[in-house]
Amino acid sequence: MPINTGRNFLHTPGPTNVPERVLAAMMRPAVDLSDPAYLAMIQTCFEDLGRVFRTDGRIFIYMSNGHGAWEAALVNTLSPGDKVLAPEVGHFSRNWAEMASVFGVEVDVVSSDWRYALDPEVIEARLRADTSGEIKAVLMVQTDTATAITSDITAVRQAIDAAGHPALLMVDVVASLAAAPFDMDAMGVDVAVAASQKGLMQPPGLGIVAANDKAWEAHGKATLPRLYWDWTRRAGDEYYRRFCGTSPIHLLYGLREALDMLLEEGLDNVVARHGRLAEGVRKAVEVWSRGNVLEFNAIEPADRCDSVTTIRIAEGYDVDVLRLACRGELDLSLGAGLGDLGGRAFRIGHLGYLNEAMVLGALATVETALTVTGIPYEAGGVNAAIRHFAETHRAQLANAAE
Amino acid sequence: MPINTGRNFLHTPGPTNVPERVLAAMMRPAVDLSDPAYLAMIQTCFEDLGRVFRTDGRIFIYMSNGHGAWEAALVNTLSPGDKVLAPEVGHFSRNWAEMASVFGVEVDVVSSDWRYALDPEVIEARLRADTSGEIKAVLMVQTDTATAITSDITAVRQAIDAAGHPALLMVDVVASLAAAPFDMDAMGVDVAVAASQKGLMQPPGLGIVAANDKAWEAHGKATLPRLYWDWTRRAGDEYYRRFCGTSPIHLLYGLREALDMLLEEGLDNVVARHGRLAEGVRKAVEVWSRGNVLEFNAIEPADRCDSVTTIRIAEGYDVDVLRLACRGELDLSLGAGLGDLGGRAFRIGHLGYLNEAMVLGALATVETALTVTGIPYEAGGVNAAIRHFAETHRAQLANAAE
Amino acid sequence: MPINTGRNFLHTPGPTNVPERVLAAMMRPAVDLSDPAYLAMIQTCFEDLGRVFRTDGRIFIYMSNGHGAWEAALVNTLSPGDKVLAPEVGHFSRNWAEMASVFGVEVDVVSSDWRYALDPEVIEARLRADTSGEIKAVLMVQTDTATAITSDITAVRQAIDAAGHPALLMVDVVASLAAAPFDMDAMGVDVAVAASQKGLMQPPGLGIVAANDKAWEAHGKATLPRLYWDWTRRAGDEYYRRFCGTSPIHLLYGLREALDMLLEEGLDNVVARHGRLAEGVRKAVEVWSRGNVLEFNAIEPADRCDSVTTIRIAEGYDVDVLRLACRGELDLSLGAGLGDLGGRAFRIGHLGYLNEAMVLGALATVETALTVTGIPYEAGGVNAAIRHFAETHRAQLANAAE
Amino acid sequence: MPINTGRNFLHTPGPTNVPERVLAAMMRPAVDLSDPAYLAMIQTCFEDLGRVFRTDGRIFIYMSNGHGAWEAALVNTLSPGDKVLAPEVGHFSRNWAEMASVFGVEVDVVSSDWRYALDPEVIEARLRADTSGEIKAVLMVQTDTATAITSDITAVRQAIDAAGHPALLMVDVVASLAAAPFDMDAMGVDVAVAASQKGLMQPPGLGIVAANDKAWEAHGKATLPRLYWDWTRRAGDEYYRRFCGTSPIHLLYGLREALDMLLEEGLDNVVARHGRLAEGVRKAVEVWSRGNVLEFNAIEPADRCDSVTTIRIAEGYDVDVLRLACRGELDLSLGAGLGDLGGRAFRIGHLGYLNEAMVLGALATVETALTVTGIPYEAGGVNAAIRHFAETHRAQLANAAE
Repeated sequence: MPINTGRNFLHTPGPTNVPERVLAAMMRPAVDLSDPAYLAMIQTCFEDLGRVFRTDGRIFIYMSNGHGAWEAALVNTLSPGDKVLAPEVGHFSRNWAEMASVFGVEVDVVSSDWRYALDPEVIEARLRADTSGEIKAVLMVQTDTATAITSDITAVRQAIDAAGHPALLMVDVVASLAAAPFDMDAMGVDVAVAASQKGLMQPPGLGIVAANDKAWEAHGKATLPRLYWDWTRRAGDEYYRRFCGTSPIHLLYGLREALDMLLEEGLDNVVARHGRLAEGVRKAVEVWSRGNVLEFNAIEPADRCDSVTTIRIAEGYDVDVLRLACRGELDLSLGAGLGDLGGRAFRIGHLGYLNEAMVLGALATVETALTVTGIPYEAGGVNAAIRHFAETHRAQLANAAE
Repeated sequence: MPINTGRNFLHTPGPTNVPERVLAAMMRPAVDLSDPAYLAMIQTCFEDLGRVFRTDGRIFIYMSNGHGAWEAALVNTLSPGDKVLAPEVGHFSRNWAEMASVFGVEVDVVSSDWRYALDPEVIEARLRADTSGEIKAVLMVQTDTATAITSDITAVRQAIDAAGHPALLMVDVVASLAAAPFDMDAMGVDVAVAASQKGLMQPPGLGIVAANDKAWEAHGKATLPRLYWDWTRRAGDEYYRRFCGTSPIHLLYGLREALDMLLEEGLDNVVARHGRLAEGVRKAVEVWSRGNVLEFNAIEPADRCDSVTTIRIAEGYDVDVLRLACRGELDLSLGAGLGDLGGRAFRIGHLGYLNEAMVLGALATVETALTVTGIPYEAGGVNAAIRHFAETHRAQLANAAE
Repeated sequence: MPINTGRNFLHTPGPTNVPERVLAAMMRPAVDLSDPAYLAMIQTCFEDLGRVFRTDGRIFIYMSNGHGAWEAALVNTLSPGDKVLAPEVGHFSRNWAEMASVFGVEVDVVSSDWRYALDPEVIEARLRADTSGEIKAVLMVQTDTATAITSDITAVRQAIDAAGHPALLMVDVVASLAAAPFDMDAMGVDVAVAASQKGLMQPPGLGIVAANDKAWEAHGKATLPRLYWDWTRRAGDEYYRRFCGTSPIHLLYGLREALDMLLEEGLDNVVARHGRLAEGVRKAVEVWSRGNVLEFNAIEPADRCDSVTTIRIAEGYDVDVLRLACRGELDLSLGAGLGDLGGRAFRIGHLGYLNEAMVLGALATVETALTVTGIPYEAGGVNAAIRHFAETHRAQLANAAE
Repeated sequence: MPINTGRNFLHTPGPTNVPERVLAAMMRPAVDLSDPAYLAMIQTCFEDLGRVFRTDGRIFIYMSNGHGAWEAALVNTLSPGDKVLAPEVGHFSRNWAEMASVFGVEVDVVSSDWRYALDPEVIEARLRADTSGEIKAVLMVQTDTATAITSDITAVRQAIDAAGHPALLMVDVVASLAAAPFDMDAMGVDVAVAASQKGLMQPPGLGIVAANDKAWEAHGKATLPRLYWDWTRRAGDEYYRRFCGTSPIHLLYGLREALDMLLEEGLDNVVARHGRLAEGVRKAVEVWSRGNVLEFNAIEPADRCDSVTTIRIAEGYDVDVLRLACRGELDLSLGAGLGDLGGRAFRIGHLGYLNEAMVLGALATVETALTVTGIPYEAGGVNAAIRHFAETHRAQLANAAE
């Protein structure tokens, strides 16, 4: 087993790097669950999560992962026999839809080849065709980390409105919150689902769901059985009900610190940083791709998300050898291809607590590993990223000087 | 708000004190979820949890609290319309039963006045009466922290067997695991439910369920809808399925350290320590009770559990004033009365990472607070505890010298 | 070796308990020594240490322990052949004086039987006798933790002034800073010496010296060779000179947090708390002493310090057996007798991050250990402490209500 | 002030990155200084430091920085009026020599232009000329981090032996221990001086000195006054004397963890890794230098050390602008030029807890900053480093496959 001789570069698209500040914030004794100072801290977490989602809606914090939060969104808003429309652009959008079917919800999949974002017009057409109003919700994944494809949530909202359809718009922002532009209320999203270990820079352990009034109204009529996930039981300020029992003390203190960090940087700056870093990665991948062995999974640049980049590898090359070389000798963790992309792609996560130096170190290490493993690529990817970062920083300096 | 000038004495019956070793073990970077060293560590957690439950059955670790683990136990083994028998000896046994009813399970409550453990003969009689086999499970709480009453699980098993009834024996060991004697397989328990923040000395965040083959068989026929909690999806070694998605990295590293501590001390020694410390608390309460204002909730000494002591206060005295005096000025957190005992009792937790000095400090601080708040008690409770601890340690020394 | 099953009660008179906040503050990456944010933090440490010493004088922070800080005080102010007056009330005042002699300084010891504070008139007489002004400094230890005797620094200042003698007043406040009243400037102290691991609630590693203008002037003429300790080289703001090279990053961040805690509580409150807790310990020892085997080392109540209590044990009883019983089985660390008190006394530290519950736990554990080891004592010491704490808290509540 | 949005890349040549394992090991309560488990741990630190220095000599651990350890080496072995020979290859060798002069030791400097390692023949000649044996010690700095020049200690030993001179060979290994090959006994080094915050991967706070029998013998005759630093007082196992008072609990637990890490990796592997990473940096600097503005300070490749690289910048370019751009916007801390190189050079540290990805990230960020600040360089430095790392890893894989 390799000895750890320096920091691991964690570039899976989640979990992401936990800042030392967040870890240190968790370094504390357990507290009485009814301690007033603790409860006041929790209250600020709910409020500031509202700021991060940019919503006036209700926030629910679960001890769970993202799958638990997915389930919470479904069982609180749907009834057995309901239908949902599930545009699929990757492994995660597929899985969320499959989860709904387990609960007796009929799933109308809008399938794709996972290489393009879905056309909102297709969604609009499907909804228009649903004249009897059987579709209760549209399940979107803003950023599917399997394919690295981002969906245009505003356009989907417009499609729903254009169709005059009453379905809820439920959006998985697990991999996009605090990374891509997301404004729940302005975008007309009814339910949003997130998790702690991505843009929120937290250890895994918390699932977060935001719901607006329309979703709350649907909740009142939804009959899927639920208790742990139940919004009604968790509504209000009563501390023990709010978490359906014991609350996750240490994870909440960590969350508080992470929210402080996001708000100190400023959410717009956080999103801009993700855009800048992602573009650096893409500049590198563009160069590498000229070797005709590697290529972006997302064919259209506009469809490529800012949280992760999925890179396909030509047949005959073993992507696992690359990942193992990175992990074993070079302290770099890359994401594997998932679902239909298993064995055919690798993924470079660029989400969360990251800066230029970290991204450059990861990209240069990928070049090193490509060389070691004999996978053809055009060298110079890192140079392209360096040029991009130099330009954006020059622009920043110029702006600052004005 | 009081300034913290020394360690808080956390004597709520959960969460319990998190050892510094456990906190330090969580002070680490996030890892790739597929990292082999991480996966090997997880595997040892599953195995060593089996040692702590003393079972060869299956272990499931959820990101959740105890309520989540309760739900997992129910939805994996029951179907809508099933009936369960729920002997009630406190707030938590009541709540678990109520949870079952939310999922369409009929609950046959065996009620009590919360001051005695239930007579297993009553359980046996109910089961004998169920000639059509409608009852699918008996829900027991080994230690109900609201009433501080412990139930004799072995006797319940014998009652079920004597009745020749096939119902599953499902036991909440949330507050008793690694505190009271519990041997899942030897006691014939089919499903056991625990959580991280009690005897396991962990931050809240993990719910744990153990299931034997009989429970697994029942699971195969149980039709309550489930996904996040589903045993089948979580069975086997596949790391991503095992946690229904992302695994709780930091909490698992903390669990690993806590398991090390328990196994280093030796489970029998852990249980013996809890017995010794609990007896010290009871010696003090006995003395205090002579003042005719305070009294044990559990009338029979044999019914008093080793994890927490619930103390009733005569009418006309305000238990909240006592708790606030302890918390605000004296850095001692006591448990409040719960459910029917709300406002009528307080609780001294003595569970988890504790030694004599901590318990003595807590008891002496309760005496201080009783004096400050003018609640009558007979002084000398701490002295009685001191004598008890001196005797048990003298016995240890004598044993060691032989 | 005993297994740690709960928190150790650390009641040696140093190192003291490090608050979790302080430990968490040290949980951070190393920084560039010239980082502006780091340098700004350091500057506030110097300033706030001035507040804690209550001086406008210069502050020097050394990577060292208290012995290093002692040496720094001596070599910066004295020259070979100088004479110092060293009133001795315990092991530490003796040792500081012996250190001076190693550097060729003549030491005029004012000896004592270690059971009473020195009479300032004796000091005055010695100084009056020094008509040629050979004595350059008077070395006082405000709180000698070996004997638990406190010296009246104001009275010593008056004695020096009454004698009209120009000697520097140099005071070891290692065990008294942030525990006993100390006001460097108002008390006319010229040099004060402290360390991090006592009232400052820090890990060991920092020695701190404060010097007023008179001391600085003496420094200019002092010819003992020095470099690491040298004040001149460390004067000013230049970061690298200030610490004679690399600065102790993590310890300084810890110090910053500890200073925050002291200032949040308020220095007067900190001192009052130490007085209250110490009195509780003394109430217990008074009761125990009636057994005629244990007795206070300091015969006069006024001479007993608030940081530690030294308790003599009659001949024929083995104090080490007591300490080992406490440490090995009962998780309580007591101080041993030091110097002439070796084997004849033990010490209960009550300094630093402490509250009533911790002190009560320690006292009750001492009673337990006395019982186990068969050392006669009158029971009820803890009860006396409880009554004392109840009274002081009732007074606080009454004051708060006015 | 810039917001920290990712890990800082700390590439000053000390302090170095503190591994999370080391930080976590410091996350513990303070202990009784006489606690047997603690003392046993300390004993292993002394023993394993012997392994790291590769000596059977005595080890002394000081609470201090490297300057303190320098002073310890001098005052324990020299007497006023002694002479030392001080070959100067940079700021640190100059400073150590100046320190000696403060203690009344005559310093015979062998000066240089700081761009070449000193010729051992010059040292031999000086020693031969010292026919009266006035020179008591030769002060060498194995790796002077100001100039990044390494000295050949074996050759210096041979020079001393060739001259038949009895002078002690005293070597500063602060920046070379656990980075460059060093074998104290085999190299005939009499005194070696180190500090915690470099190759030992610790927070600053510990200075370490190793001394062989010849040094110990010299110590017996050396008359410079000393107490805190005194070897005789610190000799033996008595815990309180060993550290001249209180020991640095948390720093020692951190040291223990760091020693574990070094021994797990294997010292030879640690040194090989430093060589590999340093060569990667040099490959990059070679390319950058073709731009005729940047150049290695050390002209001869053989003189370049493996801990840091000092890069001169042509007149007319502002090195501080570069460093500030790195620190402020790009989260990269570079070392400044020191002493005669102030304003004329910058330094890239590559010492301690580091791997390829970290070094590549730093190099790529330097390229970014050079571009942003308009300092001419030939692009492709990172590519050269990538090629070097790919080659060395291919060689490793090939070796592993044999």
